[in-house]
Amino acid sequence: MEKMKLKLLYSDLRPELEIIEKELEQAVDSSSHLLNDASLHLLQAGGKRIRPVFVLLAGKFGNYNIDVMKQVAVPLELIHMASLVHDDVIDDSEIRRGQPTVKAQWNNNVAMYTGDFILARALEHITEIDMPSIHHILSKTMIEVCRGEIIQIEDKYKLDQNLRSYLRRIKRKTALLISSSCELGALVSGTDEKTAAHLRRFGYFIGMSFQIIDDILDFTASDEELGKPAGSDFMNGNITLPVLCARKDPAIYAVLKANLKQDLSDDARVEIVEMIRNSPAVGEAKMMSERYLHKALKELSYLPKSAANRTMRNIAFFIGKRKF
Amino acid sequence: MEKMKLKLLYSDLRPELEIIEKELEQAVDSSSHLLNDASLHLLQAGGKRIRPVFVLLAGKFGNYNIDVMKQVAVPLELIHMASLVHDDVIDDSEIRRGQPTVKAQWNNNVAMYTGDFILARALEHITEIDMPSIHHILSKTMIEVCRGEIIQIEDKYKLDQNLRSYLRRIKRKTALLISSSCELGALVSGTDEKTAAHLRRFGYFIGMSFQIIDDILDFTASDEELGKPAGSDFMNGNITLPVLCARKDPAIYAVLKANLKQDLSDDARVEIVEMIRNSPAVGEAKMMSERYLHKALKELSYLPKSAANRTMRNIAFFIGKRKF
Repeated sequence: MEKMKLKLLYSDLRPELEIIEKELEQAVDSSSHLLNDASLHLLQAGGKRIRPVFVLLAGKFGNYNIDVMKQVAVPLELIHMASLVHDDVIDDSEIRRGQPTVKAQWNNNVAMYTGDFILARALEHITEIDMPSIHHILSKTMIEVCRGEIIQIEDKYKLDQNLRSYLRRIKRKTALLISSSCELGALVSGTDEKTAAHLRRFGYFIGMSFQIIDDILDFTASDEELGKPAGSDFMNGNITLPVLCARKDPAIYAVLKANLKQDLSDDARVEIVEMIRNSPAVGEAKMMSERYLHKALKELSYLPKSAANRTMRNIAFFIGKRKF
Repeated sequence: MEKMKLKLLYSDLRPELEIIEKELEQAVDSSSHLLNDASLHLLQAGGKRIRPVFVLLAGKFGNYNIDVMKQVAVPLELIHMASLVHDDVIDDSEIRRGQPTVKAQWNNNVAMYTGDFILARALEHITEIDMPSIHHILSKTMIEVCRGEIIQIEDKYKLDQNLRSYLRRIKRKTALLISSSCELGALVSGTDEKTAAHLRRFGYFIGMSFQIIDDILDFTASDEELGKPAGSDFMNGNITLPVLCARKDPAIYAVLKANLKQDLSDDARVEIVEMIRNSPAVGEAKMMSERYLHKALKELSYLPKSAANRTMRNIAFFIGKRKF
């Protein structure tokens, strides 16, 4: 399994990650059964905990103390979790046509407040950190992530948007939180500012690369590998890099335009996915993700060689090569 | 207009409230048109700004400095605004205060992320306060408000819930934020702890009284006065104090039970509203709200007489007597 292979790369961090896992469990605990169920479900659904991993690795460049590291790792992962729950609400309502069932509505409401609750818990953890500069970065990150969500709604179904809009979106959606994880991990462990800046940029570049690959996989991986129908992004109106590259071909542009905002049949969806998959767009998008990957690696090259540096490098390579 | 009359009570605070209004406008400003529209719409829909008013009044018991006061008044009002947007998603409300809700004007997704964005802005403002105890109260308040929202979902359509469940719910939904407003206003202006505790309890009691009256008005005021159909709470499954009092009559209980979770016709809705309105339940609920009102006034009686004390007293009386 993909997730397993990635985890091997940072198996050294397992004891520390378990501490963070316990803190996360405590953070989502509440007196409400419903809330506990929803939050624990979310927690157990797992995820790669890549943000805490980056916090910990960045911390290894300074005076690493797990009790300090977890103070930023936990709220960062909580912010990420909250945004996941709220994203699910969005996607749910996209699929649903006409009137929502009472049950669907109930779940969405629970999901919304579960997200709010987790955000509030993140805030609680943040308030325990007594470094104002850390607060500042965390709150700025949260604002930009939220802004990104809104911009994603604004940019939906806009086939004629420029590349810059896309890059701005994935920056806020993915790159910023990883970038902040690296920067904060460095800062709380007392690295010098130059090291923190290299790590911040490493996180930014690797986040951009990661999201571009994610957007490519939506067209190149199978439904089974993705755990959802390929082409979901396009069907939901999210115009990603492969589409932006593919639309340069007038014939492809016409097909995309005609199928935008349509209730696509499964055959039509597969046809569009294959059209993109077989176009030069996938190669172009891959090149762009690789350019970000190399920029990320370059940032690491400025930093002292160490086990943490190597692990970051391996994770970056892994992300660059992943097939789903 | 009701709102006008209330505003007269604190007209002395107008210059300071205008400063806070400007800060709120800045706080919801963003680079996204959609987000700006949604947030400004929400801001202009207004509201009584009762939380900032209580912050300012509480501050008058200490060393009042508007630049310090606004640091807590702004995030408290932002938290309140965010919870309003998210509530509208839940209740599927099309109208609030006679104006279309963000949810109705755009859609649930925009409403959800607008709420998230406003929460993130609240966090940004909180991080600028360099008193850890203030952070602690604010984050605890936010957690409890979110928890309250979830509990409200859990308790929906439960006609057989006990009074304690209701009180716990309105505490978290309304009383806590007002209570924190009073407490924080006192603390940031450097009052002694006893004064802050009296003001905190005043806020709590007045918040409870306020919410009970709100819940009564849902049955006794007209659709026009409410700016939404009377009986909306019951139709949405929110079991409030008038219902809890009225259900003691077996005949009323049977009607309520039969109409719970039903898609009520307008006639059926009006019939239920009138049944409650004409029952002893309204009087009982009013008595309970008055008991809280008196407890609130008692807290003020322990504090030095002053213009701020008198204004708080007047607001409390006004709330106790308001008809819609």
